[in-house]
Amino acid sequence: MPAEPLSAHDVEAALRELPDWRLEGDRITRTYRLPSHFAAAGLTVHVAQIQEELDHHSELTLGYNTVALAVNTHDAGGAVTRKDVALAERVEAVAPGHGAR
Amino acid sequence: MPAEPLSAHDVEAALRELPDWRLEGDRITRTYRLPSHFAAAGLTVHVAQIQEELDHHSELTLGYNTVALAVNTHDAGGAVTRKDVALAERVEAVAPGHGAR
Amino acid sequence: MPAEPLSAHDVEAALRELPDWRLEGDRITRTYRLPSHFAAAGLTVHVAQIQEELDHHSELTLGYNTVALAVNTHDAGGAVTRKDVALAERVEAVAPGHGAR
Amino acid sequence: MPAEPLSAHDVEAALRELPDWRLEGDRITRTYRLPSHFAAAGLTVHVAQIQEELDHHSELTLGYNTVALAVNTHDAGGAVTRKDVALAERVEAVAPGHGAR
Repeated sequence: MPAEPLSAHDVEAALRELPDWRLEGDRITRTYRLPSHFAAAGLTVHVAQIQEELDHHSELTLGYNTVALAVNTHDAGGAVTRKDVALAERVEAVAPGHGAR
Repeated sequence: MPAEPLSAHDVEAALRELPDWRLEGDRITRTYRLPSHFAAAGLTVHVAQIQEELDHHSELTLGYNTVALAVNTHDAGGAVTRKDVALAERVEAVAPGHGAR
Repeated sequence: MPAEPLSAHDVEAALRELPDWRLEGDRITRTYRLPSHFAAAGLTVHVAQIQEELDHHSELTLGYNTVALAVNTHDAGGAVTRKDVALAERVEAVAPGHGAR
Repeated sequence: MPAEPLSAHDVEAALRELPDWRLEGDRITRTYRLPSHFAAAGLTVHVAQIQEELDHHSELTLGYNTVALAVNTHDAGGAVTRKDVALAERVEAVAPGHGAR
């Protein structure tokens, strides 16, 4: 499916449901803190699995006990789309099971 | 903490809360089916992370799109203990986030 | 490709090149010991990736700091085939990079 | 162990042994291309395991079928040290086993 850029209004509405995510430029981002580097690796594989299922592979940075996501859609000219919001929601739902906060 | 074997009655009560788990000999077991081998690998790392956090490393078998757990406590003579039930509950809570059924 | 069962002679020859593997029934098996459970999880994901690439998903058991493989080919009636030897060789080549012995 | 910053001359010598790595600012970097996102996730966990073993957690970015490393040492003021070179060498040795190029 082609992913239409969301309007500024729709991005704002989506972020109200994702209170720990914020808009940075044309990406929505969140950094998760994990209880160990093992846990950070576990969350990373989980996000990679979700990216594959949604066929939406945005950038993920593994730091020391942290996992940072920065999500936007390349073929929508780098704008935020529903696919980005869907990925953020999926990750948001599973991250606590890895001990993320 | 030393883990006391649970009575047959307590195991039965625990399994009522874990309806997809069953008692096989002196282990509680469940096999999860995953939507892909990638997802099975993702759940496996997640379980390994939880085992490490609970310091309770029971046996896990990765098959083709499946992850099978067989949980008991070696230093309780191979009986089912509260640690086993705690591990089963943690895995049960996170498996759906990997698409397990 | 259909995988022909190897003759007893060919299995023996293959195992001479895989000195830490042994024949158990109609499977070839090896258990790797890892320096940590994190390392065991890392090797597990690596094996899962190789299984996917070879389209050959044999059984892997993750224990406490251990990864055990038991490899045979279901559609060859559970015999040892060249696909099994190929999987064993690939895993054997990468396991030391995880600290396995 | 405290990690001393390497001289420009020593960094240059180290990079001659790591021909696919380059100096960017005060980091040494390389981006690996993998045959699948599963393979990229596998390499990521492997690098995370190595980071934990070396107790040296530099930044790793997982993209679409890519893993990018950018390595320097925070407590050496962000300079390149022997620990960085050691991490790069370990990853360089294992990446081909994930199909990286």
